Amino acid sequence: MKSIEVCFSPELIHLHELEDKLVVVVDIFRATSTMVAALAHGVTEIIPFADLESCRAMQVQGYLIAGERNGLTAPGFELGNSPIAFLEGNYAGNKLAMTTTNGTLAIEKSKAAAEILIGAFPNLKATATYIQSQHLDVLIHCAGWKGRFNLEDSLYAGALAKLLEHSHQSADDGIVAIKTLYAAHGTNLADFLTQASHAKRLQNHGIEKDIEFCLSVDVYSQVMGLDQEGRIVLY
Amino acid sequence: MKSIEVCFSPELIHLHELEDKLVVVVDIFRATSTMVAALAHGVTEIIPFADLESCRAMQVQGYLIAGERNGLTAPGFELGNSPIAFLEGNYAGNKLAMTTTNGTLAIEKSKAAAEILIGAFPNLKATATYIQSQHLDVLIHCAGWKGRFNLEDSLYAGALAKLLEHSHQSADDGIVAIKTLYAAHGTNLADFLTQASHAKRLQNHGIEKDIEFCLSVDVYSQVMGLDQEGRIVLY
Repeated sequence: MKSIEVCFSPELIHLHELEDKLVVVVDIFRATSTMVAALAHGVTEIIPFADLESCRAMQVQGYLIAGERNGLTAPGFELGNSPIAFLEGNYAGNKLAMTTTNGTLAIEKSKAAAEILIGAFPNLKATATYIQSQHLDVLIHCAGWKGRFNLEDSLYAGALAKLLEHSHQSADDGIVAIKTLYAAHGTNLADFLTQASHAKRLQNHGIEKDIEFCLSVDVYSQVMGLDQEGRIVLY
Repeated sequence: MKSIEVCFSPELIHLHELEDKLVVVVDIFRATSTMVAALAHGVTEIIPFADLESCRAMQVQGYLIAGERNGLTAPGFELGNSPIAFLEGNYAGNKLAMTTTNGTLAIEKSKAAAEILIGAFPNLKATATYIQSQHLDVLIHCAGWKGRFNLEDSLYAGALAKLLEHSHQSADDGIVAIKTLYAAHGTNLADFLTQASHAKRLQNHGIEKDIEFCLSVDVYSQVMGLDQEGRIVLY
């Protein structure tokens, strides 16, 4: 049986061995949910950047540039961090360069892993099924909020750990805790997450539809992850 | 109403404001439980040290020296990290210098706080009652295990947050999560914690009685914390 562990913050990732592991990066509100939406609706690849400048520089290479800081579109960027923007397929065929407050940093800090997947509720089950075909130990890397634990990423981690419980056994206390959290509140995510500090932050930005999308489960059957060149693509 | 937040690891404490806060340091297995046992049974003061050498040097000043690393008594130390050693009052009247794998580091990293208390289940309610008399925002600082989240410290934090819910409102997602965890498993701590990685580690050391003591609730009515000189004393 393979193992599963969780890291609640990119600031703790140095405590985990990444080599030979499959890492699932999670930033439910909203980076990884937006990545899944974009690729499911025709965007051909996404290059994640930890900083604004490197991301902005991709525009001259023909990339759409998406930049978010503190929940808002960064100055000079075409797109922010809203999954809704992609749902009509308006950006199909485009390549995207993207930087966000928490999510792209978590991807950057996962790069020593054997494989990196992008985790989000809209393709939860597809991701779990793919993981079971890979026979690797799993680490769920929660992006958190500026280094701190958050509820939405932890609940996703609990949901994924639950789906994998017959193939991957808990390797740390975090998995036990988030499975308890998901068992208590997984059937009522939206209501429970009104208590989440980041959901409150986002509600102030008037993006209830984004939140609704981010919490919709198993809408897509595709799996997304990083290829050998560090681009996020459909598998 | 005052606020309450939680930090799951000394490696995340830099993300929290400590100034003007009352910090409760928690290392259930076993540093803070042992400190509470020692002071409740007549030890007059405890000086915490982050490193073995500084702690060992206190012996010539007449201190008992207690040193633990990875669950075992450190070489050359009189005592390790067992609360049971103090319960008969054999060390009453002594001063203690102490260093442990996780707990004393968490105390060291809390020193910018307005006040620091030592949290453990055996004096949970007394500590909560004292906190309510202080009218300060609260931060629960979990020692964790080598920087990682652990169940036993989080469950104590959930228990304390529950007792304080009418005086201190949740300031972060961590509090919401640990209150859920405690609501699910607080009535059955010992059974649930057999899943905790550190309890498993300790069971290998044959110290079931230590674990039993660490999970006993409201045995003492005294409160323990740091005085102005950084010594841990009875309040």
